Amino acid sequence: MSDGAEPTSYPVTPRNRVKRSHERGQYDRATVYAVLDAGMLCHVAYVIDGQPYCTPTIHWREGDRLYWHGSSASRMLRHEKKGAPVCVTVSHLDGLVLARSGFNHSANYRSAMCFGTAAIVDDPEEKMRALAAVTDRFWPDRAATLRPIDEQEVKATTVIGMTIEEASVKIRAKGVGDDDLDDATFPVWAGVIPVSTVIGPLQPSPILAPGITVPDNLRHYAKGRTLDEALLETQAIYEAGPPLSGN
Amino acid sequence: MSDGAEPTSYPVTPRNRVKRSHERGQYDRATVYAVLDAGMLCHVAYVIDGQPYCTPTIHWREGDRLYWHGSSASRMLRHEKKGAPVCVTVSHLDGLVLARSGFNHSANYRSAMCFGTAAIVDDPEEKMRALAAVTDRFWPDRAATLRPIDEQEVKATTVIGMTIEEASVKIRAKGVGDDDLDDATFPVWAGVIPVSTVIGPLQPSPILAPGITVPDNLRHYAKGRTLDEALLETQAIYEAGPPLSGN
Repeated sequence: MSDGAEPTSYPVTPRNRVKRSHERGQYDRATVYAVLDAGMLCHVAYVIDGQPYCTPTIHWREGDRLYWHGSSASRMLRHEKKGAPVCVTVSHLDGLVLARSGFNHSANYRSAMCFGTAAIVDDPEEKMRALAAVTDRFWPDRAATLRPIDEQEVKATTVIGMTIEEASVKIRAKGVGDDDLDDATFPVWAGVIPVSTVIGPLQPSPILAPGITVPDNLRHYAKGRTLDEALLETQAIYEAGPPLSGN
Repeated sequence: MSDGAEPTSYPVTPRNRVKRSHERGQYDRATVYAVLDAGMLCHVAYVIDGQPYCTPTIHWREGDRLYWHGSSASRMLRHEKKGAPVCVTVSHLDGLVLARSGFNHSANYRSAMCFGTAAIVDDPEEKMRALAAVTDRFWPDRAATLRPIDEQEVKATTVIGMTIEEASVKIRAKGVGDDDLDDATFPVWAGVIPVSTVIGPLQPSPILAPGITVPDNLRHYAKGRTLDEALLETQAIYEAGPPLSGN
């Protein structure tokens, strides 16, 4: 799970270079990982016969490998046994920025775009590890407490993996852009409306087995916390933990 | 702003037909609009020389026309004066679904995928209307209160528009999938962790002009409300309002 041998930053090429507002661009792995790991939902862009598709799905990460379930695999990989070029993007909207001019209205956000070749994970060891990881990465040690996965389910589940070849992050995290312009004195309200993804009250299944209470490994998802916090904490626990079987 | 002459549902073709979990698929305009309008952030997939890109941006809608700023225009439309095929997706993560088996873990979500041909809006009338709409659609009647846009800014802003040709929505909004299976008695906690995007306390610019208070048109964005609610309300107000100039 270590990428200690990797350079600290991704190479910058015409594919991942941030063009518009390029001063917001970053390419180091730590920043890319922080944006990826703070989200659960990614969008995967792929191409079939010249037509682009953009499919949302749940992602998880192990070092420089991104994984997701194969909801799009049937379409995306039907003709591409060796893998297909994709762009996987994770974005967080952090605030609406209201300026004194329409021109300077903006948004605070963090987004990571990752480029690579997506392929079905068919190595049995990597697949089993990825299937445990998708649970344990979000809820530490939960996989071992579940009804074990059976062979039929392993077969019925497609896991897609991609090594991140290039990536870039864009972040805007500041106040109103016209605070230091002539417009600052224009008589209209300006400021930021912050938004965040917040966890609500747990909704237990109505038919839990007797005596079952909320396990300790769900403490990260307490009501009122942000999903960002919970996901970054659980990823850190996952990375610090003992290597999973086969790792 | 009316699409009264349009059929109620989008055509279902190989491009937009929901394949995996097809029982979650819907194609009627009202459902598509409700998912699009409840979000501010979309992801645009496009292709350059066979390479897919997935760019996050702010979108807004007028009938069957989707608009966004041209952050990706320079790349996306450089070689495609007549427009480029794109897929615009808006997704909401509504909950994490924890089952008794890894296999039945899931997520509650709403997502809309829209297909069409994106092109730069260069009709001056449509462009000015879109530039007013991006403000007024989110903050009713705010555009008229701002320092007016100048010619230079209009030139410097690229607006991209797309008529939705086909679209589909996928929604999962329910409890744990194994509640009615043998697994229901397995002794592990199961349930839903709901999440939502919530508005925080307004952060006024530190240098507001004297006497400036929070305007009434920001009441939708009161602390603790969900962004969904605010965006659906403001879209409804925008649609009910008097037609903008040139509309």
